[in-house]
Amino acid sequence: MKDLEFERISNTREILRNIIKKHGRDNIYDLTGLTGGFYIENKNLDFLETYTGPAIFTEKLNRHGLAYLHNDFNEDSDIKNKIESLEEYCKSEMAVGFNRTSSALLATIITLKNKKISQILHYVPEKPSHPSIPKSCNILNIPYYESDNIEEILALIETGKFLIITGSTMNHKIVDLENTKKLIEYCHSNNVNVLFDDASGARIRLLNGQPTALNMGADLVVTSMDKLMTGPRAGLLAGNKELIKEIYSEGLKYGLEAQAPILAAMVYTLKNFSFDRIKKAQQRAINFTFDELCNYDNISLEKTPTGFIINMEPKKSFDVALELLKNYRVITITTMGMPDASKTLRFDFTSKDADKVSDNYIKNSILNAILAVINKK
Amino acid sequence: MKDLEFERISNTREILRNIIKKHGRDNIYDLTGLTGGFYIENKNLDFLETYTGPAIFTEKLNRHGLAYLHNDFNEDSDIKNKIESLEEYCKSEMAVGFNRTSSALLATIITLKNKKISQILHYVPEKPSHPSIPKSCNILNIPYYESDNIEEILALIETGKFLIITGSTMNHKIVDLENTKKLIEYCHSNNVNVLFDDASGARIRLLNGQPTALNMGADLVVTSMDKLMTGPRAGLLAGNKELIKEIYSEGLKYGLEAQAPILAAMVYTLKNFSFDRIKKAQQRAINFTFDELCNYDNISLEKTPTGFIINMEPKKSFDVALELLKNYRVITITTMGMPDASKTLRFDFTSKDADKVSDNYIKNSILNAILAVINKK
Repeated sequence: MKDLEFERISNTREILRNIIKKHGRDNIYDLTGLTGGFYIENKNLDFLETYTGPAIFTEKLNRHGLAYLHNDFNEDSDIKNKIESLEEYCKSEMAVGFNRTSSALLATIITLKNKKISQILHYVPEKPSHPSIPKSCNILNIPYYESDNIEEILALIETGKFLIITGSTMNHKIVDLENTKKLIEYCHSNNVNVLFDDASGARIRLLNGQPTALNMGADLVVTSMDKLMTGPRAGLLAGNKELIKEIYSEGLKYGLEAQAPILAAMVYTLKNFSFDRIKKAQQRAINFTFDELCNYDNISLEKTPTGFIINMEPKKSFDVALELLKNYRVITITTMGMPDASKTLRFDFTSKDADKVSDNYIKNSILNAILAVINKK
Repeated sequence: MKDLEFERISNTREILRNIIKKHGRDNIYDLTGLTGGFYIENKNLDFLETYTGPAIFTEKLNRHGLAYLHNDFNEDSDIKNKIESLEEYCKSEMAVGFNRTSSALLATIITLKNKKISQILHYVPEKPSHPSIPKSCNILNIPYYESDNIEEILALIETGKFLIITGSTMNHKIVDLENTKKLIEYCHSNNVNVLFDDASGARIRLLNGQPTALNMGADLVVTSMDKLMTGPRAGLLAGNKELIKEIYSEGLKYGLEAQAPILAAMVYTLKNFSFDRIKKAQQRAINFTFDELCNYDNISLEKTPTGFIINMEPKKSFDVALELLKNYRVITITTMGMPDASKTLRFDFTSKDADKVSDNYIKNSILNAILAVINKK
């Protein structure tokens, strides 16, 4: 049986490889919002090794990770206060790095299996969830139930279970704050631990004034350092120290951890994180207009917090994305994304290359790509 | 419950971190044979990204990987022949990168679960096997049986099952060539696929004149690019193209793949691999003597193909390794290794730092460390 997702990735990688050879990296526009930057400082190049690397980087990641995941990016937080709080957090919490958010989730779910958790509940802003959680439960044979209805979830919570809350979907729909607080409180009164899958939510929710997952009392949180961030595709997992130790140790057994170069890039990203950059992208998304789309039936614009989606039927969506890649050197998740990732045609202004292209270049590329696809028929 | 393996790693990482701060990387001697080098060429620094990186590096890895895994390093193989053969291999085979050998094995075993394989058999040169295979089968609930007795394995082989052969144990005991050939042949006559877990074996077996796993007809092989190699801790998986595609695609879903910087380092390592370097280490191991150990009861020397093991009771072994780390700045797997890895006190002359230290420095450090541990009692 042909693996269609693999064929897609092989093909689009080959197309991209040829474009890079012809045009160079500077003339390619990755607008996925997931570019992933594995930047490593010169001083750290000596430590890209199996043993010395983690010795150096895990401790830095722990401190920068916890500081970041407790920062609500309010105007009023002062630095002295933050350093004192960090010392407090370090006593009972810990942050560690995984190869990807999906592998952090897999390590967590393996640990939950060891603990004989009877069911994993999953509250999502909108169904269906990112497939890595249900798939991990499925291969490990752990009962799983997901819903975007809070009453359904509340009715199922009981001791021996575990709750995952997704902060923001792949299409950037965010979770309701009041529902989240209610769920965490109810879980804790039933001795149920809560993991916040905040892959992109750790930034998007904050843009909407929500607090960080750890500040809301979640026991665990995972975020992806490439989503609305210029860091590596890697998972930063943090929270309750005892749980984190178990999960990390379990992850090491299956090779799920972030290794030296990825850890180094995670540390760099956290040290240089700019929330203002995301706010700027948000503003660009607010100002963005695309009236020309009205000329097309069944094609519509949908804004996201830091970008937009072009809604159209999936097959056409892929064809347009392929046209964008081949002729406008625009990388989208639709063409290059991981198997099972949402293939809606979306663009994000937090992308590494977003500043290199004007709104007009993006709009004209999309319009021309749509025309080319229509004319081919 | 305290996770002792995690505590060990946390503690030894902290000790190592302090030694690095005080003495610098140059004065540390990693003699594990698993140092792991994530060297990335300057020209590739632009492509340490989620989408452009794999587009560039996966194809290079495929070609260099297959060429390497078909190279028996005989004197008589000529280069023109090799290039022609490579084009042939590329038609039916493929090589891909995983974050670690353990994650390549996990992705494979997940794929076997999807295929409803009824049992995974595992032939090892000596029991027990590296724990990642039985553990992966266990969490995925796949029947598993391992043995170092070929008759036992032969009796169990039948259609619907899958065979893993370990090429060389963690302590570098290698598999018997005739038994291996017999097993592969018998499997193929029963439509059973064979994976060669050649983490270190891909080098050690060749030192003994054995052919590569793919040249023996294995359907799949995985090797670790840091074991007796100066490359990254990462898993190179290769073999039957259709199987590899399925496994890689499955791995991507759980975040098990090698990402851009690790792929780049894998390519560099393969391009610059020197079998002569390993042969030199083998010669050093052959010449190595350690008569002074005779003065100690229950402590003995055991040669490995490229280094040696100091056999002693496990608790003492760890204490000596800790002393070596603290006072002689010598890194061993005993102190720094992954959870569940074999904790025998072993030293490998293929290590990155092995050329920096004389046999005498190593021997004196070990003797002094043993004395210190004995005197503490």
